Amino acid sequence: MEKILIKQFKKPKLNTPMLIGGLPGIGNVGKIAAEYIVDKLKMQKLMEIFSEYFPPQVFVSEEGVTYLVRNSVYYKKLPGKSDLMVLVGDFQGTTQEGQYELSYNTLEILTKFNLKTIYTLGGYSTGKIVEAPRVLGAVTDRSMIKDLSSMGVVFPKGEPGGGIIGSAGVMLGIGKELFSIDGACLMGETSGFFADPKSAMNVLKILSMIMQVDVDLADIEARSQQMEQITGKAAEEFQQRTQQRDDLGYFG
Amino acid sequence: MEKILIKQFKKPKLNTPMLIGGLPGIGNVGKIAAEYIVDKLKMQKLMEIFSEYFPPQVFVSEEGVTYLVRNSVYYKKLPGKSDLMVLVGDFQGTTQEGQYELSYNTLEILTKFNLKTIYTLGGYSTGKIVEAPRVLGAVTDRSMIKDLSSMGVVFPKGEPGGGIIGSAGVMLGIGKELFSIDGACLMGETSGFFADPKSAMNVLKILSMIMQVDVDLADIEARSQQMEQITGKAAEEFQQRTQQRDDLGYFG
Amino acid sequence: MEKILIKQFKKPKLNTPMLIGGLPGIGNVGKIAAEYIVDKLKMQKLMEIFSEYFPPQVFVSEEGVTYLVRNSVYYKKLPGKSDLMVLVGDFQGTTQEGQYELSYNTLEILTKFNLKTIYTLGGYSTGKIVEAPRVLGAVTDRSMIKDLSSMGVVFPKGEPGGGIIGSAGVMLGIGKELFSIDGACLMGETSGFFADPKSAMNVLKILSMIMQVDVDLADIEARSQQMEQITGKAAEEFQQRTQQRDDLGYFG
Amino acid sequence: MEKILIKQFKKPKLNTPMLIGGLPGIGNVGKIAAEYIVDKLKMQKLMEIFSEYFPPQVFVSEEGVTYLVRNSVYYKKLPGKSDLMVLVGDFQGTTQEGQYELSYNTLEILTKFNLKTIYTLGGYSTGKIVEAPRVLGAVTDRSMIKDLSSMGVVFPKGEPGGGIIGSAGVMLGIGKELFSIDGACLMGETSGFFADPKSAMNVLKILSMIMQVDVDLADIEARSQQMEQITGKAAEEFQQRTQQRDDLGYFG
Repeated sequence: MEKILIKQFKKPKLNTPMLIGGLPGIGNVGKIAAEYIVDKLKMQKLMEIFSEYFPPQVFVSEEGVTYLVRNSVYYKKLPGKSDLMVLVGDFQGTTQEGQYELSYNTLEILTKFNLKTIYTLGGYSTGKIVEAPRVLGAVTDRSMIKDLSSMGVVFPKGEPGGGIIGSAGVMLGIGKELFSIDGACLMGETSGFFADPKSAMNVLKILSMIMQVDVDLADIEARSQQMEQITGKAAEEFQQRTQQRDDLGYFG
Repeated sequence: MEKILIKQFKKPKLNTPMLIGGLPGIGNVGKIAAEYIVDKLKMQKLMEIFSEYFPPQVFVSEEGVTYLVRNSVYYKKLPGKSDLMVLVGDFQGTTQEGQYELSYNTLEILTKFNLKTIYTLGGYSTGKIVEAPRVLGAVTDRSMIKDLSSMGVVFPKGEPGGGIIGSAGVMLGIGKELFSIDGACLMGETSGFFADPKSAMNVLKILSMIMQVDVDLADIEARSQQMEQITGKAAEEFQQRTQQRDDLGYFG
Repeated sequence: MEKILIKQFKKPKLNTPMLIGGLPGIGNVGKIAAEYIVDKLKMQKLMEIFSEYFPPQVFVSEEGVTYLVRNSVYYKKLPGKSDLMVLVGDFQGTTQEGQYELSYNTLEILTKFNLKTIYTLGGYSTGKIVEAPRVLGAVTDRSMIKDLSSMGVVFPKGEPGGGIIGSAGVMLGIGKELFSIDGACLMGETSGFFADPKSAMNVLKILSMIMQVDVDLADIEARSQQMEQITGKAAEEFQQRTQQRDDLGYFG
Repeated sequence: MEKILIKQFKKPKLNTPMLIGGLPGIGNVGKIAAEYIVDKLKMQKLMEIFSEYFPPQVFVSEEGVTYLVRNSVYYKKLPGKSDLMVLVGDFQGTTQEGQYELSYNTLEILTKFNLKTIYTLGGYSTGKIVEAPRVLGAVTDRSMIKDLSSMGVVFPKGEPGGGIIGSAGVMLGIGKELFSIDGACLMGETSGFFADPKSAMNVLKILSMIMQVDVDLADIEARSQQMEQITGKAAEEFQQRTQQRDDLGYFG
C-alpha cells in the first residue's frame, strides 16, 4: 500500500487558488473554521486522502455506519477572485515523517491546480481564558505582514515563542522551501482547554477579508455564545477555587 | 526482506467468498470465535503471513519446538452457499503502519479469490461483567443493517463511541474505500478483563446465521460455563470488596 | 544509505557450515559464549554488518580510538567436520523491524555459503541465582531433540513459557520458514542480574559437542569462579536482607 | 518526498577541505562553536538540508517570519591551507535511522568536494560546574592523537566511558567505515546544565590551531564571562543548598 493514497474526484480549472488548511489541533480552532467555510460556501469535494500516517481507525455514525479516517480537500470557484481550496480532516499525521509526507504530498497535487497562496489555521494556546482573543499571524515572506495587519492580524514580538509545530507550520515551511509558494499561518488565541468556536469565529472574520467573500457567521456566533456560557461558569468556578487556594498559600 | 511475506499453499476457486477476520483483541472475542470456526469446520490452510509488523518472537511448544509468529488464512468451500475464508493469527500489526499494511496486503490477495464481503470480529469492552452480552454491529453500508438486525445484532445509537480501532476497523475501512468491498464488524460485549468465550459464543451464533452453516457450539458453551464459574466468583469477591470500600468512603 | 550495510572480507568455500549466533541479551550468555569461541578457535573475520537498526554510536577505546557499533561474522574451516561461522556483535536490532531485517539479511548472505544449521545462544532468566544452571533447548524440528538431549540439553515442558523474543528466536524462525534451514536455540539458565560467564560456560560445553571441537574452557572457568565469588557474596547479603525483611512481615 | 532534501547553492572547487560539524547537543557546545566560526569567518552557504528526520516545525522570527527547521553547510576557501566546510543546524536527526541517514547523506555529498578530514564537536557532560573545562578527544585513527595532544586536547583513559552517541559519533564512524575518511571528535567539558559558551570557546581555541586560522574570540569570551556571572551565582546557591541538605543528613 502507498503510505498516502489519494482519491481525486474532480479536475477543475482553478484561477490562482488559495489553500486554507484547517486540521485538528489546539482548541480545534483551525478545524472548526475550515469546516465552517466548507459548509457555508457549499464547497465541492476535490479529493480524499487516506494514509498509514493516520490512526488505524474507523469512526461509526450514530446509525452504525463506518467511516475510515481521512483528510479531504474541497474547492469552490469564485469568479473574479482567487478560487478557493480548503483542507480539512480527522487527524494530522501522527508521526514526524507523516507530518512532512502528508504536507508534501498534498501540496504536490495542489500545485497542479496552480496553487498560489497557503493559509494555515491553528490555535494559539494561552493556557487561560481570554476575553477578547486575538488572531496572531506568521508569514513566509515579510511582504505579507502589512496586508494582514491591516485586516486585524497581530504580529506580537516573540510570539509564538516556540515556533509552529505540526501541519500548520510544516505546510508553510514546505510550501515556501520546496514549492516556492508563500503563505501565512493564522492562529486564533484560545485557552486550549476545549474546542473553541469563538476563536474560530475570529479567524473566520480575517479569512472572510482574505477570500473577499462574506461568510455568514450567525451559526458559529451562536455556538460561540453557547460555549461561552458553559465555559464562563466553569472558568468562574475555577478562578474562585484558584483564588481560595492562593489565599491559603498552597504551592502544589 | 519484504515487510510482509506471504506463503500461499493453495489456489482454490471460490464462489463469492466471505472473509471472517478474528485477530487478538479485547477479550480475545474475535480470535476465539474465528479459531473455533476453523477448527469445527475443519478448514484448510490457504496462506500464512509473516511480517516485520509482528513481534520478533517464536513461540515454543510444550515439546520444545519453535513457531515463528504469524497470521493465517483458512478456507472452505460451501457448495450452494458463499464459500468461506477465515483470518486468524497470533498478533495484530503492532504499529499504525503495520495495521494498514497488513490489512491492505491481506485484502489485496484475497480479492483475487473474488472476495465479496468482510466480517470482522472483535470485543466491545464494557469494563464490567455483563449478564447477557449483546453483539453490536457496524457496517460499511447502511443497507446491511436490516439483515443483521434481524439476526439479533444491535446497533445502539452512539456505540461504539470512539469508533473501531485496529484490524477489525481498518480492514472494513480499507475494504470499502480501496477495494469497494462491503462488510460489517461484529462486536461481542465483554468485560475485557479476560479471554471471553461466552461473548465469542454469542458472536458465533450470529456468524452461523450469516454463513448459513450450523456450527456445533457444545465445546465453546462448556468453556463459557467453566469461565463463568471462575469469573463469577472473582466478580462476586470484587463487588464485595468494592462495596466495603465504598462503605468506608475511600476515594483512591 | 542502505538500512543494513555489509562489508564482506573473504569468500571461503565452506563445507556444510553451521552458524552460531551470540548477540547481547539476558546475562549476555550468548555473547560471552560466542566471543569465546571466536577467540579460542582463532576464527577469521568473514564480514561486518553496520546498520541503522543499531544505536547511532561509536565506542571509544581506552586509547581514544572510535569504533562504529556493528555485528560481525567469523568463520573457521574444520576439515572433516562441518565448518563454523559465528555471529557476534555489539547490539541486537533495536526495533522490531530491525530484528527481522538483520536476521533475514544475515541469513540471506550466509546461505550463499551453504549454511546448513543454525544454533542461537541466549540466556534464560530465572530471576534468582541458580546453583547448577541448566541449558534449555528449543528446536525448529522435533527430530533434533534426541541428539541435543543426549548432550545434556533439557527441554522442560512449558519452558520458556513466553517463547523466545529477539535475535535468538527470530533467526530460527526466519531460518526455518523463509530459508528452510533447521536450527536450535541453546539457553543458559542465568539469574539475569549480571553478565554470567558460568552460564556461558555451560552453553560452551554443549557447543563443544555440537561442533565436535574441544574448546579450552580454562579461561572462562576462571572468570566464572571470580564472578561467583563476587556474586556469591552479593547473593548472600541479598538473601540475608530479604530474610530479615520477610521476618518483619514487610510486603513492599 | 525524499526523506532528506538538499538544496545546493554553490559548486566551489575546494582544496583538501576539512568538515567541522557542530549540531545541537550537550551544553550546545558544538553548535555554539561551529556557528561562531561561520559568523566570524563570514563563510558562504553551500547547501541546506531539510528532512523528515527533523521535527515538523517552523521557527518564527521576532518580526513574524517563518523558517522551516534545517541543517546547513557553509564553506570558505583558505588559500594555502585546507579549505573549510562547517555543518550547523537546528536539530540532530530525532531517530536512530535519522542519525545514520543524515550523517551518511551529508558525507556522501561532501565527499564530492574531496572531503579529507572530519572534526565533530560536542559537549562532554560532567554533571557539575568545572573551573577549567578540558577539551577531550577521540579519533578514528590513533595516528591523529599525537598532533591533537600537542594542541592541548586530552585523551583520558576510559573517557568518555559510554562512547559517543549521536551525530558527533556517527559521522566519524560512518566517515571511517563507509567513506574511508578519518576524523576526530572534540568534546568540550561542560556541566551540561545550560548552553555553555566557555566550553565552546575552549573548543574554538583548538579548532583555531587545526584550521591554522586566527578566530577572534573576543565576543565569545564576553558571552562566556556573562554566563559565568549568572551561573556562578546559581552554582553558589545550589552548593549552599546542597551543603545544608547534606548537613541535615537528607537522602532524597
